[in-house]
Amino acid sequence: MNFAAYLDQQKQYIDNMLKIFLPSENNYPETIHRAINYSIFAGGKRFRPILVIETALAFECTKEDVANYACAVEFLHTYSLIHDDLPALDNDDYRRNKPTNHKVFGEDIAILAGDALLTLAFETIAKDNPLCNNAACQTPYTKIKIMQELARAGGTFGMIGGQVVDLESEGKEIDIETLNYIHKNKTGALITSCLRIGAIAAGVNEKQLEDVTEFGNKIGLLYQIVDDILDVTGDEDKLGKKVGSDENNKKATYPSLLGLEKSREISEQIAREAEELLRHTDLKTGFFKNLIFFLLNRQY
Amino acid sequence: MNFAAYLDQQKQYIDNMLKIFLPSENNYPETIHRAINYSIFAGGKRFRPILVIETALAFECTKEDVANYACAVEFLHTYSLIHDDLPALDNDDYRRNKPTNHKVFGEDIAILAGDALLTLAFETIAKDNPLCNNAACQTPYTKIKIMQELARAGGTFGMIGGQVVDLESEGKEIDIETLNYIHKNKTGALITSCLRIGAIAAGVNEKQLEDVTEFGNKIGLLYQIVDDILDVTGDEDKLGKKVGSDENNKKATYPSLLGLEKSREISEQIAREAEELLRHTDLKTGFFKNLIFFLLNRQY
Repeated sequence: MNFAAYLDQQKQYIDNMLKIFLPSENNYPETIHRAINYSIFAGGKRFRPILVIETALAFECTKEDVANYACAVEFLHTYSLIHDDLPALDNDDYRRNKPTNHKVFGEDIAILAGDALLTLAFETIAKDNPLCNNAACQTPYTKIKIMQELARAGGTFGMIGGQVVDLESEGKEIDIETLNYIHKNKTGALITSCLRIGAIAAGVNEKQLEDVTEFGNKIGLLYQIVDDILDVTGDEDKLGKKVGSDENNKKATYPSLLGLEKSREISEQIAREAEELLRHTDLKTGFFKNLIFFLLNRQY
Repeated sequence: MNFAAYLDQQKQYIDNMLKIFLPSENNYPETIHRAINYSIFAGGKRFRPILVIETALAFECTKEDVANYACAVEFLHTYSLIHDDLPALDNDDYRRNKPTNHKVFGEDIAILAGDALLTLAFETIAKDNPLCNNAACQTPYTKIKIMQELARAGGTFGMIGGQVVDLESEGKEIDIETLNYIHKNKTGALITSCLRIGAIAAGVNEKQLEDVTEFGNKIGLLYQIVDDILDVTGDEDKLGKKVGSDENNKKATYPSLLGLEKSREISEQIAREAEELLRHTDLKTGFFKNLIFFLLNRQY
């Protein structure tokens, strides 16, 4: 099986898990449950939950053992997209070729749907995972560590902090340090956290967790630089969103600060550094090697 | 010391604890930390954290033992106020005689400030509480039970569910069952949860937790009915908000459905039932007896 097909298979698995851990849309009040189901099943690539699962697999847990944690990061990620798309923030009408949550349900319900998914992220970590066969992955102590991890990554010293600096930088000339702060926090923090959550669930030691963190940081930055590049060079149909939106929103990006060619060079450099890191860690499954190449060359 | 003075003393204690558990406004990015500090220190009565502490005290923990849990419920409550006040929801410009968060910081930051406080609520439960002298109150197992409690009370089967039905009922004729659903979930769920959190932290047995829950439900309903009455009869200066706002927003309330006199009768009936419950439970500190009388007769 090629890597894209493997990713798709894992995505299907996550989709099934999300159906287990998300309250169905028949629950009262129906509106809010329809709204959260709409955004969760609006065609995400499930990149973040796959990272949780693959890291756990690399340290010899099963995907069932960490299924609730994988769903929790997708809930948190989706809440952030719903709120980002609101008129007061990025004001996006479409995401992945579908109308955004507030275009379908109204701004009031979209705000509450985001709140609900954020709440549910923490609840899903705290809850029993009936699929788990390895109790060590789900002890109260492990759950607490994973909550601390997700809260830090999603909070004002992570994702929200990055989002705030991004908002404040719109239309301003910013330097590469500020751009790196935004990338590191707005998207990187959660991506690194996904690897750390998989590793913490698997009970890794301090050194292993440090290695995972360093590798996660590379992957997060690689993901974001390629995202910046695709916003200039990408195919709108494949991306499911308009290209050039960063430029239109006057957002600083790697290409706008350093040019397209230099940005490509940097992305290749980071990919090499990530490969180099893999060689010296316990994170040696074929998945992560393939992932680096896949992220570097992705078209969507 | 009279009861109002005692409440004020406890409020001061909570204010000091909030300063310990909330990141100061000097943290980068400053905007978001200023925004969360603004709303947390905008003059709340600290009713909910006081309930956490008093229930813990009734079961022989100290207030230090549960200080982080008390702060967590205030963070969650404050997030809900910031989001409720947004133009897309209740569109309130003032709360407690001060401009609402979005009037000071803009809608984008207000949305993120709410998100940050919700995240911080769970983080504060998960974190170490350096003030605690009774490790049993802060075991990972206890923390997980408290997270489940807060997530359920704050989620779509609690506060958010009540908020959604409230929004959908505006301008419509609703029956008393729907109004009770709104009250029970929008405000009642978190109030009951505060008592349950204090009790869970103190390690109560099943029967004690049931009693606390039943008493909490009475207190929550009493609080809300009196709130409805004060929106008709209250003093704007004392309340810190306009009276008649429910009527102007076409919100159903106890007085609008049943009349003022009948609403007062019901509030007195619930107060008697709450007193009766106290007689048969372990929750017998003078505080809760005083609280019933205080809630029934409050002017703000």
